Amino acid sequence: MSEVNNSVNTPVNQFNAAGELTHLLTLEGLPKEQILHILDTAQQFVSVTDPAREVKKVPLLRGKSVFNLFFENSTRTRTTFEIAAKRLSADVINLDISTSSTAKGESLLDTIDNLVAMQADIFVVRHSTSRAPIEIAQHVPAHVHVVNAGDGSNQHPTQGLLDMYTMRHFKKDFSSLKVAIVGDIMHSRVAKSNICALRTLGCTDIRAIGPESLLPRDLDMLGVKVFHSMEEGLKGVDVVMTLRIQKERMEVGQVPEGDAFFKQYGLTPTRLALAKPDAIVMHPGPMNRGVEIDSAVADGPQSVILNQVTFGIAVRMAVMSIVAGN
Amino acid sequence: MSEVNNSVNTPVNQFNAAGELTHLLTLEGLPKEQILHILDTAQQFVSVTDPAREVKKVPLLRGKSVFNLFFENSTRTRTTFEIAAKRLSADVINLDISTSSTAKGESLLDTIDNLVAMQADIFVVRHSTSRAPIEIAQHVPAHVHVVNAGDGSNQHPTQGLLDMYTMRHFKKDFSSLKVAIVGDIMHSRVAKSNICALRTLGCTDIRAIGPESLLPRDLDMLGVKVFHSMEEGLKGVDVVMTLRIQKERMEVGQVPEGDAFFKQYGLTPTRLALAKPDAIVMHPGPMNRGVEIDSAVADGPQSVILNQVTFGIAVRMAVMSIVAGN
Amino acid sequence: MSEVNNSVNTPVNQFNAAGELTHLLTLEGLPKEQILHILDTAQQFVSVTDPAREVKKVPLLRGKSVFNLFFENSTRTRTTFEIAAKRLSADVINLDISTSSTAKGESLLDTIDNLVAMQADIFVVRHSTSRAPIEIAQHVPAHVHVVNAGDGSNQHPTQGLLDMYTMRHFKKDFSSLKVAIVGDIMHSRVAKSNICALRTLGCTDIRAIGPESLLPRDLDMLGVKVFHSMEEGLKGVDVVMTLRIQKERMEVGQVPEGDAFFKQYGLTPTRLALAKPDAIVMHPGPMNRGVEIDSAVADGPQSVILNQVTFGIAVRMAVMSIVAGN
Repeated sequence: MSEVNNSVNTPVNQFNAAGELTHLLTLEGLPKEQILHILDTAQQFVSVTDPAREVKKVPLLRGKSVFNLFFENSTRTRTTFEIAAKRLSADVINLDISTSSTAKGESLLDTIDNLVAMQADIFVVRHSTSRAPIEIAQHVPAHVHVVNAGDGSNQHPTQGLLDMYTMRHFKKDFSSLKVAIVGDIMHSRVAKSNICALRTLGCTDIRAIGPESLLPRDLDMLGVKVFHSMEEGLKGVDVVMTLRIQKERMEVGQVPEGDAFFKQYGLTPTRLALAKPDAIVMHPGPMNRGVEIDSAVADGPQSVILNQVTFGIAVRMAVMSIVAGN
Repeated sequence: MSEVNNSVNTPVNQFNAAGELTHLLTLEGLPKEQILHILDTAQQFVSVTDPAREVKKVPLLRGKSVFNLFFENSTRTRTTFEIAAKRLSADVINLDISTSSTAKGESLLDTIDNLVAMQADIFVVRHSTSRAPIEIAQHVPAHVHVVNAGDGSNQHPTQGLLDMYTMRHFKKDFSSLKVAIVGDIMHSRVAKSNICALRTLGCTDIRAIGPESLLPRDLDMLGVKVFHSMEEGLKGVDVVMTLRIQKERMEVGQVPEGDAFFKQYGLTPTRLALAKPDAIVMHPGPMNRGVEIDSAVADGPQSVILNQVTFGIAVRMAVMSIVAGN
Repeated sequence: MSEVNNSVNTPVNQFNAAGELTHLLTLEGLPKEQILHILDTAQQFVSVTDPAREVKKVPLLRGKSVFNLFFENSTRTRTTFEIAAKRLSADVINLDISTSSTAKGESLLDTIDNLVAMQADIFVVRHSTSRAPIEIAQHVPAHVHVVNAGDGSNQHPTQGLLDMYTMRHFKKDFSSLKVAIVGDIMHSRVAKSNICALRTLGCTDIRAIGPESLLPRDLDMLGVKVFHSMEEGLKGVDVVMTLRIQKERMEVGQVPEGDAFFKQYGLTPTRLALAKPDAIVMHPGPMNRGVEIDSAVADGPQSVILNQVTFGIAVRMAVMSIVAGN
């Protein structure tokens, strides 16, 4: 499967003939009412999974088979989907694709056909190639659902949705929100998904802060304001989202050396003080402490980083129950 | 465990003292009524696992522990057994034996004893050594059941049974059936299991097609007609079963070079046209497209390759529920 | 996480504010009534998991999430906890930590924070560093429970408890019991946990048998009698516990060469005859036959090695249900 250009204008159909959400592939073009429906559904699951609750599960997907197809290793994301599916009472099958039939010369779509024939209901797909989950969704029959768990440098829609959930939980209204995204936006599917969703939800002040080498060129086309200085970009924002420096996606020369990145773009208490006093600090994890974020901020009172993880389970439960329910 | 010769005449006991099937180790000598009982049971499970059904599981093995013991890696087969066991409501434990206690100097039978002491109910065993599952079955106590998921180049009985299910589904009567098996029969436990079952079910026209180097010598003793040409062997058959070229089991010099195999033995639309017009095309997967089968055939209207996968889940549910029920 | 010295006097708190057991970290200092409560609870689970029982599970942990965190590979111990948790109806998530986020630069405690945020209920922790599970227990919130599944050369409390269960099952009274532990006691967390529990339960005749290089120096401080000869040490004992020679924990020069160890310390029928006629033989597994134990003894009538495994499932069910119930 070759890399496919995912320009802003390529439409991706994630709805069935009845106009219901049947896959979650991208937040690009996902309507506002659909995003809000997912967040509202997730809100119910937050209480289902409360530690104080005796039985932290619901029978919504009982008897359904969820296949975790991780073509790219990610224990963290795989675990969140596995636990979300189990709390919906689904049967979960983890497939480490690197050791599977593809090694015996089988093509991706032959593997998918086989799993469909085993009566899969939901594929959760993580792939290093952009748009791979979209190709899979176009290939499967109507009763099978695909959830994108991160495709190349394209999208990570459930992360974008859990970030929206987190902002709504702490900040309520998107239209007056000022959001700064800091760091390696170029390689970040998280940043892309967030920008799509924020715009859809009416956020008009989205800022990207980072060195020129780590920012994509088309940001202003997306209505995102570009800053190369933390001191300027963070002024008066409600939300600071720091991103992980993804050395594994960078080319030689692009990787910031030593603590050069932290000196210029690390989120320190001093810099955070430039934001609103009640600004929240977000990070998709895993964090590199001392690289993109100072421990005092990561563990500080404004950090909602662990809330994001909790909301992430509920959002994934919502997404899987909605697509499989349609 | 050293390789043991599995000649036609070595009896394997897979029945308990009451004459009930307690293990599934081989299709050699498995009586016709037993095979038909498994196929009939599987037929009920096909409807249980229908995508349209709300809850695709039954509580037949609730509280039972199924251990998947894969001494040889096979994600595909392991997955089919895992999903079948979960749809019977069993608890499934996957054991990657290469990283387990055997590495700490423990013997195979010590490992088995330990798992029995953990109150295993069913062992699903894949092993690169022929007859390993038989040795395990001889070793375990009467309340523990062993299902052979492929042993060396010996047998793959659940694959043989799902192939019988598929033929019966599409063709009904075995006695008038003409079946051609094409390719690397020498290294194929699938071919061996199929030949055993077809003979038991009354099929009198079984053909083996392939180069001399890939056909075992004792085929005519088994009543199988040998062909070295597709053009001759495929004439008028009802079923064409192509096998995967298993390079990993071949010796140097035995591996067909380049597209030499495809030129002589690849199943193309032209060659398939020599079979009956309503002949079905089968393959145990994973397929090497362009090596043993042309994509036009694999994806064509006569292909029942994905039906085999679906029936395979139901057959494995049937086998596990029957042995554990006895 | 650096190695921390676990001297006899360092207190470890495994109780909550109400004085209930909330973690199981060590058998050092665990009160007698608490140990007996665990053994009594396990006794009930032995009958729940009896092969003759139709449904071998209870709904005590339904809806709870058990995370198996194995920082050190151990298929055997991981499997026993997985099967125990599933028989309590918990959802089990296996995390192979070597391939997880820690590889992306995340710290251990950040990983733990994330899993807590996913609403983990129980962490089962195996770690090559002594006291790692204790650090995790000190870090997590009150509703999360940690069970030590073996930390460095420190403790293996569930193994110690299952050994106590086994001795009580076959021998009843601890106060008159003579117990010999043979072999590599220096590197054995199993030996340490056993010595702690035996002393707490009133055993006054504990013997350590082995070469000087494999015995720790502080044994007499613990009231353990040291023997360098099997012939002397085994005289009249009720229990012989042989340990696995753990080459992976030894330094160069410490590993016994060839069959030198077996000649001097291997448990043979002749040596076992020095113990009481009804003495039982125990081993935590996996066994090296012909290194620390003769096959005639391992498979002989006095061996209770496989009973230990069966009791181990029940003991782990007891521990998890008790800590999560408090």
